[in-house]
Amino acid sequence: MHEKLEHPKPAVADKDTARVESFSDGVFSVAMTLLVVGLTVPALPAKNAVPTPVYLWNELGRNWPSYFAFITSFATVLIMWINHHGIFKLIRRTDGTLLFTNGFLLLLVTVVPFPTSLVAEYLLTPAASVACMVYSGVFVLISVGYGCVLLAARRGGHVLPEAKPEIDSRIRSCFCIGTPLYLLATISGTFSPWLSLGICSALWLYWAMVGLRRGRAFGP
Amino acid sequence: MHEKLEHPKPAVADKDTARVESFSDGVFSVAMTLLVVGLTVPALPAKNAVPTPVYLWNELGRNWPSYFAFITSFATVLIMWINHHGIFKLIRRTDGTLLFTNGFLLLLVTVVPFPTSLVAEYLLTPAASVACMVYSGVFVLISVGYGCVLLAARRGGHVLPEAKPEIDSRIRSCFCIGTPLYLLATISGTFSPWLSLGICSALWLYWAMVGLRRGRAFGP
Amino acid sequence: MHEKLEHPKPAVADKDTARVESFSDGVFSVAMTLLVVGLTVPALPAKNAVPTPVYLWNELGRNWPSYFAFITSFATVLIMWINHHGIFKLIRRTDGTLLFTNGFLLLLVTVVPFPTSLVAEYLLTPAASVACMVYSGVFVLISVGYGCVLLAARRGGHVLPEAKPEIDSRIRSCFCIGTPLYLLATISGTFSPWLSLGICSALWLYWAMVGLRRGRAFGP
Amino acid sequence: MHEKLEHPKPAVADKDTARVESFSDGVFSVAMTLLVVGLTVPALPAKNAVPTPVYLWNELGRNWPSYFAFITSFATVLIMWINHHGIFKLIRRTDGTLLFTNGFLLLLVTVVPFPTSLVAEYLLTPAASVACMVYSGVFVLISVGYGCVLLAARRGGHVLPEAKPEIDSRIRSCFCIGTPLYLLATISGTFSPWLSLGICSALWLYWAMVGLRRGRAFGP
Repeated sequence: MHEKLEHPKPAVADKDTARVESFSDGVFSVAMTLLVVGLTVPALPAKNAVPTPVYLWNELGRNWPSYFAFITSFATVLIMWINHHGIFKLIRRTDGTLLFTNGFLLLLVTVVPFPTSLVAEYLLTPAASVACMVYSGVFVLISVGYGCVLLAARRGGHVLPEAKPEIDSRIRSCFCIGTPLYLLATISGTFSPWLSLGICSALWLYWAMVGLRRGRAFGP
Repeated sequence: MHEKLEHPKPAVADKDTARVESFSDGVFSVAMTLLVVGLTVPALPAKNAVPTPVYLWNELGRNWPSYFAFITSFATVLIMWINHHGIFKLIRRTDGTLLFTNGFLLLLVTVVPFPTSLVAEYLLTPAASVACMVYSGVFVLISVGYGCVLLAARRGGHVLPEAKPEIDSRIRSCFCIGTPLYLLATISGTFSPWLSLGICSALWLYWAMVGLRRGRAFGP
Repeated sequence: MHEKLEHPKPAVADKDTARVESFSDGVFSVAMTLLVVGLTVPALPAKNAVPTPVYLWNELGRNWPSYFAFITSFATVLIMWINHHGIFKLIRRTDGTLLFTNGFLLLLVTVVPFPTSLVAEYLLTPAASVACMVYSGVFVLISVGYGCVLLAARRGGHVLPEAKPEIDSRIRSCFCIGTPLYLLATISGTFSPWLSLGICSALWLYWAMVGLRRGRAFGP
Repeated sequence: MHEKLEHPKPAVADKDTARVESFSDGVFSVAMTLLVVGLTVPALPAKNAVPTPVYLWNELGRNWPSYFAFITSFATVLIMWINHHGIFKLIRRTDGTLLFTNGFLLLLVTVVPFPTSLVAEYLLTPAASVACMVYSGVFVLISVGYGCVLLAARRGGHVLPEAKPEIDSRIRSCFCIGTPLYLLATISGTFSPWLSLGICSALWLYWAMVGLRRGRAFGP
């Protein structure tokens, strides 16, 4: 213990990242688990009526937008977590700026179920364009948020030296691919909701691939 | 600190598993705690009526399906957590594939309260067969999910050498016992809801036993 | 890293307790935070009426049972967490039995807000006796649950040698003080709800004191 | 492993802080994520009416108080987390007193969304004065809570020697700046809700600045 007190800095530095990560993990995992609240068991039919198997299949089938929103939101937040995880593996220490930009990103992560439900509810109505614009608009902000976290980490010099190139490549992904394409999706939402959603889906596949590839880069 | 920078890989590898586990723990613990939301305090009787002790006992008694669903869901998710915990004790490192298969498994974990409530609500109606089929169908997927996590860990070579036999034995449990028996439970649900639930319950006892025995194997 | 692979057991043992604790922390912290859901902002008055300051004070005042239930539940779960924390500081390793008894205890922890709201809702009605019996009944189970966790830890030989006396003293507290007194509170609820609640409150003060004293025992 | 058993104290001490932090992180992250529950997707219009884009924009616009309350609560709890994080970086060990004062602080953290929604709901009504007094009153308590955590840490001698001056400076911030100014805001709420909110907002900027500066102090 005395030996430790003589070199307190490294201990502090290690603990530092650990706590930001566990806090972020908490936010991600609660955000993902809260999604189940949107799945409701079909109510029993009005009094005196007996629920037949056909009744229950129909009721379950009618709820497909909520299942669709659940699975999409879950996958979206999962991919964001995997990329967040990949980014923080490269960071050794935090400072105030990184804590605040990370907090801004977490705010957006917890918001994701809201626009997803909005799209699920309004996709087949004439108001679909508005829902899709809100949806892609949130992802413009998320893309900027990831970029800011990466910039804050890079600027503070808190990254492992050998991780610099990956940080730079991820910054380019955010600002040169993510932000402009999500902006395009937001604008195209005014005339075609489906084009808007198509661009967003293609980008999710891209981020999943980034997560898979980078994740593997740390394998043996 | 400088000494650390010269060997950054092992540090990265240790941190890696820790964060997947803490994230999974978050999802498991929130999923288990959210179940309480289903327990509602009986409403006071309509105005001018006084709630007698008999009234309250009756109201509490009428809610038995929600208590039953609460305890069953909690026990189910607990056993899944214990087995998840047992599996990750054997894994040293993660890659993208493992993160995604684990994420798929967590999605199914958070879903469990939904089919459980469905069964509690519809068990005594003619629609019981549908509820039981949905219930066992979810567990077919969960069984496949555990198998995929184990395969991803084995394939990436991320397991401790001495843990290989246990991983193999757990893979066999998933694909040769779990998946076919849950499939049988799903099919038998079409003509007998009780047979379907019986098979599922027997399997839960089996997984609990696996969890207990394996857990002990790491004792002193 | 190679050095590590040669002695994998100690690493596994350390990691083991860490994950049970982080999982339990998750359950405790979600259980405590979910309590806020019971605090609702007073609704605006019916249309055309203007909410005056007096109106809002009255509405806030009328909700006192929900504030009372919130603070009581929070304090109760906090004291349980502090004692749980004190117990797990003494445990070095886990096995299947400990995981299951701990899971049973966590089930009861998540339940606590339910009987607390029941008492807050029915305390001033003739049904108070039932509410108080359910409340103290849950704590009989919780007291047994803590005892079982301690027995499981002791039996498996997973405690630090110097911690044996404290474990034994805590087991005595559970089975010789907690369980019989909560049973007494449950029985006395049939004729006096206030006596029942008085016994429970006195016991909470006792557990808080145990938590404070034991916590300090590990100070410098 | 044997070597470890001979010096168990340091291991216990390290583990100690880790668990209080992970528990606090859980409470903070759940409190922040639960805020999303307040964001509701606008309902589809009554039957036979088709939701036009204008309808959806209007409905989303009408919900601005809930968006405002969401962002404010999130930012508030985030700043509190960053300061909590900054404080616990300086603490090496915990005792019962610190656990209880920290628990009291966490109770207040989970409460924050309640007065925030109260202000969002009643700000434009004559009852705004009451809402603002409740809001600043909660922050009087929070300011005292932070001070008590810091005093408990200092008194127990659990802080790193080189961290003493920062602890003292933070204690002064709580009791000489935070508490009296929040009290002023509470009193001024009786005649001017806007002055009350202005003082609170100015203090939040101040705490954010403290968090940023202190955070940076641990940079390289």
